[in-house]
Amino acid sequence: MGGFFGITSRKDCLMDVFFGTDYHSHLGTRRGGLAAYDPEFGLQRKIHNIENSPFRTKFEHVFQEMRGTSAIGCISDTDPQPLLALSRLGNYAICTIGVINNSQTLIEKCLNKKGGYFDSMTGGRVNSTQLFSAIMNQKTDFADGIRFAQEQIEGTASVLILKDDGSLIAARDRMGRLPVCLGRSEDGYAVSFESFACQKLGFEIVRELGPGEIVHITPDGIIQLVPPGSEKRICSFLWSYYGYPTSSYEGVNVEAMRYRNGEIMADQDARNGFSEPIDYVGGVPDSGTPHAIGYANRSGRKFARAFIKYTPTWARSFMLQTQTDRDRIAKMKQIPVHELIQGKNLLFVDDSIVRGTQLKETVEFLYENGAKTVHMRSACPPILFGCKYLNFSRATSDMELIARRVIQDLEGEEGFNHLDEYSDGTSIRGKNLRRAIAEKLHFASLDFQSLDGVIQAIGLDPCDLCTYCWNGKE
Amino acid sequence: MGGFFGITSRKDCLMDVFFGTDYHSHLGTRRGGLAAYDPEFGLQRKIHNIENSPFRTKFEHVFQEMRGTSAIGCISDTDPQPLLALSRLGNYAICTIGVINNSQTLIEKCLNKKGGYFDSMTGGRVNSTQLFSAIMNQKTDFADGIRFAQEQIEGTASVLILKDDGSLIAARDRMGRLPVCLGRSEDGYAVSFESFACQKLGFEIVRELGPGEIVHITPDGIIQLVPPGSEKRICSFLWSYYGYPTSSYEGVNVEAMRYRNGEIMADQDARNGFSEPIDYVGGVPDSGTPHAIGYANRSGRKFARAFIKYTPTWARSFMLQTQTDRDRIAKMKQIPVHELIQGKNLLFVDDSIVRGTQLKETVEFLYENGAKTVHMRSACPPILFGCKYLNFSRATSDMELIARRVIQDLEGEEGFNHLDEYSDGTSIRGKNLRRAIAEKLHFASLDFQSLDGVIQAIGLDPCDLCTYCWNGKE
Amino acid sequence: MGGFFGITSRKDCLMDVFFGTDYHSHLGTRRGGLAAYDPEFGLQRKIHNIENSPFRTKFEHVFQEMRGTSAIGCISDTDPQPLLALSRLGNYAICTIGVINNSQTLIEKCLNKKGGYFDSMTGGRVNSTQLFSAIMNQKTDFADGIRFAQEQIEGTASVLILKDDGSLIAARDRMGRLPVCLGRSEDGYAVSFESFACQKLGFEIVRELGPGEIVHITPDGIIQLVPPGSEKRICSFLWSYYGYPTSSYEGVNVEAMRYRNGEIMADQDARNGFSEPIDYVGGVPDSGTPHAIGYANRSGRKFARAFIKYTPTWARSFMLQTQTDRDRIAKMKQIPVHELIQGKNLLFVDDSIVRGTQLKETVEFLYENGAKTVHMRSACPPILFGCKYLNFSRATSDMELIARRVIQDLEGEEGFNHLDEYSDGTSIRGKNLRRAIAEKLHFASLDFQSLDGVIQAIGLDPCDLCTYCWNGKE
Amino acid sequence: MGGFFGITSRKDCLMDVFFGTDYHSHLGTRRGGLAAYDPEFGLQRKIHNIENSPFRTKFEHVFQEMRGTSAIGCISDTDPQPLLALSRLGNYAICTIGVINNSQTLIEKCLNKKGGYFDSMTGGRVNSTQLFSAIMNQKTDFADGIRFAQEQIEGTASVLILKDDGSLIAARDRMGRLPVCLGRSEDGYAVSFESFACQKLGFEIVRELGPGEIVHITPDGIIQLVPPGSEKRICSFLWSYYGYPTSSYEGVNVEAMRYRNGEIMADQDARNGFSEPIDYVGGVPDSGTPHAIGYANRSGRKFARAFIKYTPTWARSFMLQTQTDRDRIAKMKQIPVHELIQGKNLLFVDDSIVRGTQLKETVEFLYENGAKTVHMRSACPPILFGCKYLNFSRATSDMELIARRVIQDLEGEEGFNHLDEYSDGTSIRGKNLRRAIAEKLHFASLDFQSLDGVIQAIGLDPCDLCTYCWNGKE
Repeated sequence: MGGFFGITSRKDCLMDVFFGTDYHSHLGTRRGGLAAYDPEFGLQRKIHNIENSPFRTKFEHVFQEMRGTSAIGCISDTDPQPLLALSRLGNYAICTIGVINNSQTLIEKCLNKKGGYFDSMTGGRVNSTQLFSAIMNQKTDFADGIRFAQEQIEGTASVLILKDDGSLIAARDRMGRLPVCLGRSEDGYAVSFESFACQKLGFEIVRELGPGEIVHITPDGIIQLVPPGSEKRICSFLWSYYGYPTSSYEGVNVEAMRYRNGEIMADQDARNGFSEPIDYVGGVPDSGTPHAIGYANRSGRKFARAFIKYTPTWARSFMLQTQTDRDRIAKMKQIPVHELIQGKNLLFVDDSIVRGTQLKETVEFLYENGAKTVHMRSACPPILFGCKYLNFSRATSDMELIARRVIQDLEGEEGFNHLDEYSDGTSIRGKNLRRAIAEKLHFASLDFQSLDGVIQAIGLDPCDLCTYCWNGKE
Repeated sequence: MGGFFGITSRKDCLMDVFFGTDYHSHLGTRRGGLAAYDPEFGLQRKIHNIENSPFRTKFEHVFQEMRGTSAIGCISDTDPQPLLALSRLGNYAICTIGVINNSQTLIEKCLNKKGGYFDSMTGGRVNSTQLFSAIMNQKTDFADGIRFAQEQIEGTASVLILKDDGSLIAARDRMGRLPVCLGRSEDGYAVSFESFACQKLGFEIVRELGPGEIVHITPDGIIQLVPPGSEKRICSFLWSYYGYPTSSYEGVNVEAMRYRNGEIMADQDARNGFSEPIDYVGGVPDSGTPHAIGYANRSGRKFARAFIKYTPTWARSFMLQTQTDRDRIAKMKQIPVHELIQGKNLLFVDDSIVRGTQLKETVEFLYENGAKTVHMRSACPPILFGCKYLNFSRATSDMELIARRVIQDLEGEEGFNHLDEYSDGTSIRGKNLRRAIAEKLHFASLDFQSLDGVIQAIGLDPCDLCTYCWNGKE
Repeated sequence: MGGFFGITSRKDCLMDVFFGTDYHSHLGTRRGGLAAYDPEFGLQRKIHNIENSPFRTKFEHVFQEMRGTSAIGCISDTDPQPLLALSRLGNYAICTIGVINNSQTLIEKCLNKKGGYFDSMTGGRVNSTQLFSAIMNQKTDFADGIRFAQEQIEGTASVLILKDDGSLIAARDRMGRLPVCLGRSEDGYAVSFESFACQKLGFEIVRELGPGEIVHITPDGIIQLVPPGSEKRICSFLWSYYGYPTSSYEGVNVEAMRYRNGEIMADQDARNGFSEPIDYVGGVPDSGTPHAIGYANRSGRKFARAFIKYTPTWARSFMLQTQTDRDRIAKMKQIPVHELIQGKNLLFVDDSIVRGTQLKETVEFLYENGAKTVHMRSACPPILFGCKYLNFSRATSDMELIARRVIQDLEGEEGFNHLDEYSDGTSIRGKNLRRAIAEKLHFASLDFQSLDGVIQAIGLDPCDLCTYCWNGKE
Repeated sequence: MGGFFGITSRKDCLMDVFFGTDYHSHLGTRRGGLAAYDPEFGLQRKIHNIENSPFRTKFEHVFQEMRGTSAIGCISDTDPQPLLALSRLGNYAICTIGVINNSQTLIEKCLNKKGGYFDSMTGGRVNSTQLFSAIMNQKTDFADGIRFAQEQIEGTASVLILKDDGSLIAARDRMGRLPVCLGRSEDGYAVSFESFACQKLGFEIVRELGPGEIVHITPDGIIQLVPPGSEKRICSFLWSYYGYPTSSYEGVNVEAMRYRNGEIMADQDARNGFSEPIDYVGGVPDSGTPHAIGYANRSGRKFARAFIKYTPTWARSFMLQTQTDRDRIAKMKQIPVHELIQGKNLLFVDDSIVRGTQLKETVEFLYENGAKTVHMRSACPPILFGCKYLNFSRATSDMELIARRVIQDLEGEEGFNHLDEYSDGTSIRGKNLRRAIAEKLHFASLDFQSLDGVIQAIGLDPCDLCTYCWNGKE
């Protein structure tokens, strides 16, 4: 994943872009970058590895090294960005977010042209943003180039470009799977993945870009270069899982959606006659928490934090290189509150269940700490298809998905012809799936939010939502 | 404040002490330090400034520089620690936590001796741990020295010493105002301020030290050098405010105490006939949250997070030096969820109200975001006396306390003769105080937890608790 | 300028390449870089800014980050290098030394191609090595590509490439203006600008590349891809000024050449009947020193170090950014020895006189320290043409050259028709030039080495030497 | 060893003290430190490890962290300095240079006092400057304290103190073994070990302190607290070996002394009828060089640099920890000039011959590079006694001295009764010693400067010089 933030302004804006980019730190863990334009110094750029120290620490001296009345920044889970480039389109800085699934084909295509080459390599691989830029540079203006590159790419690519006149070009990916919003202040405009980053820095939200929309932004205004397309498939997981609680996408706030989602799940349990004794309802931190709050509020059951992350300095897995070390650290973040676990009946809500590996460990950790029963609720339907648009679940094969694996166990390949039934908790197959997973992962009971439930909690037209992971609908 | 952690073991223990010390990061923001003992290398020591980067980042290379089968570490809000010293007591590393109120007198006393001097100065001031050590060194064994130093000191001092045979000496402060617990594993023993640090690292809690108790610890066992005193005054704020939720002190868990405390406050509001419409109950992060959860659970009102801290990289105020900058960053951490504020009636619980300055800003921030009403509850009684044992409220004068200032406004000096009444929310004076503060800070209503309420929530013998801040009882 | 060093070996060679590259530190002050190939990890690369710390300090941790059985390194006065690239030629790391005078034209040519672009920009400018690589990539094998790029370029470009099979490709610039030598050890081969770097690391010098020669090197041997051209113009200043004293180029050692050069100048002074009293002969450090040693040895006059550089930590102008600060530091490096200056008649030899600015300051500094007279000798003829092949004199215009400026003063533009006479110290015009410069710069007397003298000191066929700066011969 | 530099001024002087301290970098390799006094901030202090980066790099950011109208700095081969201390003498910063041979006794004496302790430990050892300060603090004023400490100490201690009123106290060691000079500018005064540091920074040398003299210095003048003693024993090696060439001590310049010393040696060789063919005379860098220049100038033989140190980045042995690595680096600094060695008869002058180990390697290295003969001259007499005042030869026992070892080989213990004869090159025993060492170290011939010769070259009253290493005279 990753995120970007940019400002074009009449005043120095580097500190605001520093903060705005930092507000995207939850979206990536590998590289952070800033590019700035100053009338005197032109385009400047700085990239740091943020695996071992947070963005803020790595960039705290940037104000002595760069300055700008326009700037863009990004947090990236993959390649170093933004890149500085020179082509017929001029001098510019560029960052992209999303995923390119057919990069090998596109690279070969470029290399087959006379003189084609790539030189911003990282660990022997071509930088995705350079690949995007190499394709874009084949056209003679930015709008054509971006559209052309987005068409060539299988996957998703939103783009933020800083030109060497200080203006910005922002483009949302063709199907609008990821959000891009625009903010306005007295001195200029901001572009952001996370809406709250705009608001917190004093930019009033003007609007969100539509799918495939491309705009050119100066401190004086926004010019539409390419109008939005008619089809939209915004990723539903933005709300259930990885969007920041304080953001809104398509006008729908994340935290509020999660409360509604939890409430709907509580109602579903009530309808299903779920009446086991529950001492505390809790969320698997961090994204499970608000779903659990909604569930507790509606069900009248007590909310409690049976385990707590040690946050002061554990924001990310610093330092240690081996997987064993990283696992150890991951476990050391979760601190149990014995008094709230010992002899208690607990119901937990997690944002989703992908492979189930980590959740299994968490539940075992609760039983080791004396839990009497642990019931589990997934805030979204069973995941039956690996994401092919954003790759965020990082599944290399559908068979890594626990729901698929259990279906295979239950009735072999034949089961894959009845995925709809398995998804539906009221059908026999659906009940079998829930029971089998619960047994495997040692849950006292398990239920999933229904597809209708999650769509209702989001509250948008279902056609505008991507629900591919749950129902395979493209 | 500050905290310490140490291990004496038959195996290398530096990584465990690294993690154990890091688990005290919430207790201090200025210096971190580690000392280790290895049979081959003897005593080693490393101190870093942790104002601009967390303990973990600063110490991540320590494993290339030090090693040890015994080690101690500390997080400090004041002086660099641990110190390495040589005296008739031998070579040793030492760290202390607490506060010395009569340091000027003690320093002069030392300097008046022939040849008296101090040389571990920080910013022109004598290091508190060196002062402690200088007094301790006047005796011929550690137990005598620690007792003597603790007697000379007005304030509080718990001590952790690493001797150059790898054994530890741990001493709890004379009145047991701060906690010290002991843990045991297969390979040795641990000493910790926070109990969860022991447990998380695989040490079973053996017991907590009593007030003034001093022990000598080797991997083979614990030898009591000085038995605990009969009087105890453990700081009540450990539970209401600064202890870590996952820790227990005197057997009482922090998170569970906060839920009980919130429940008692909900009952109090019910008894008082409080019936204003409330859409959401929330806590002022971080310590207010569990009090609010308890309140919401008991009152049947909805819990919600109307504003959320941006945590991924904002654990502490890095980088910026001026107060303006620090204020700006403090504000940038709190991100509102407009949907949960706009047009809503909100009830917030804060851990305490000291000067009221920050709370006033928070409430204004909620009104700016469209809140209809904001009711406030303090999880402890009005603070009428500045802490003289631990200095944690950092009040330089009682008149900085908002309760004192409002009482002065209400009836001048005379009011200070009726502090008991002001503390009691059922008396006329008590009601006046609450009303006047609410007006001043723009609360729709205000109430404080009662002294009995907080004692009941903790559940210990009131004689063992320090409640000086609330009732002036020494 | 800049320099490169590489090894292809059967064993780990990163430490040797680290040292070998460090031995080129006198050739550049801005960027240092290393690329390595390891069968397991493939190509790896690291670049550091060396303006504020030497190469060795910046790269001392490289052994924890990279490893390789083949590696290349470079010191660069301009762009970050080596670059990693992918093209039809494969994956490779590349560094170049020299100068591209027509880069603007070449860049435009590239950009005019459909899809042409550059993305390794530094401060808004295209990286010279990327430009070279972009042109080279238009051909289908390295030899063709390098020849093609060298033909397109006005200027000079030697190239060192590390392929992703661990083999090296080395190419000397077309006219052989800069040196490239090859060394052999038991385990493989080395390529170096400075010959002593090979020798010092245990590589026996096999031979030097001829002008335009291109070779492919594996641990098993050297394969000639393109034979050397017939014409050669190696830069004479390598010996008089910027080559390292311990190196040999075309078989001629630098230090020994400088002694011979100084001896020839002493003979010239003797022939000219120069008989002023001289207490000490000295060199302007660093390159003037060996010329002065030769002069003193031959003339029988005493050699002395009347001022000495403070070297322990002043290798380069660290830290200070403003020109004033840099000037101050430059001056602080030169420490006078008053006893050897006060009341003394001094004769100094400098490597050359370009603008004369710094030399003027040095001489004033000697007079301020009490020198009675200061005679000056330039170890090469008057510089009448700015270098257009290597740019090392960094003159932006011929009129910055002091010889040109003085000629202009003496007889205006007309003088430029008599440059040969001005160069010749035995002609009237030649004598006038020497007298006028001496007056301007406050020298008691001034003479230049003659063109024949410097050629004789080098000892190579004059046709193989570039003497453009002195006689304008291309 | 080590060195210090300080200024008390009416203006900000931190940058001058930064440069002045850096000018002492040749005297130490382990720690660098600065302390400053500013009327607003009081005393400030910063210490860095300079083993891996030079003083300048480590302190380049100090101007953002400290400021001062008075400041002191030091380079130290042993302990971290300056220390900040508080005692009855007040708040002060202190640094010392020299050596304390009876530290163990003095430490025990301090610890035996009630409450005695040390807490600035480095690697388990008491900091020498703290030990000095602990003894000094037993008196009631600085002059008494310094005198008392100097009396207690066996060894040598010069002291520079910065008081918290910005004034300085400077004390030269009791026997004046090391130099301290005073400089004056318009704005204040400077104190320095190296005289050139004062001069280069614009301070006119006022005078040098006499042995044991103590002064108090403010920007307004110098007040003598303790007059100089009558006896002086300044270290002769300051001139022959470790003083900086541009400095003068007792009015005698180092570089000029070395030329005279070389001239006297050339005369001695002439007197002795030395007539071997010599192609080049050279110095073992760095201190041997000027002795060789003097020898060459007087003998009429050619001076040449047959090997050259690679200086740009090799000022010190960075990075590598093992002795093998350090040896490798030491060797890699010396680059041979084959043309000046191959088939040549060489005469080298070294500053002294202590153990002979390194010189043996150097000579082997010359023979490996093809030298025909290598004659050796030592610029001082045979070293027969290990230094007990400054420890600079770091010999742990006299039997590590090559002269002693060879005498033992020649005639056993008995030889030590004839050291005078061995020292004298004209006696039989003297000749035998020279011949035996030459054989052992593979020299074609060997001679030492005579005691009279070195005294004559220095030119001071022999009674004022310490010649203990050569003749055992205390």
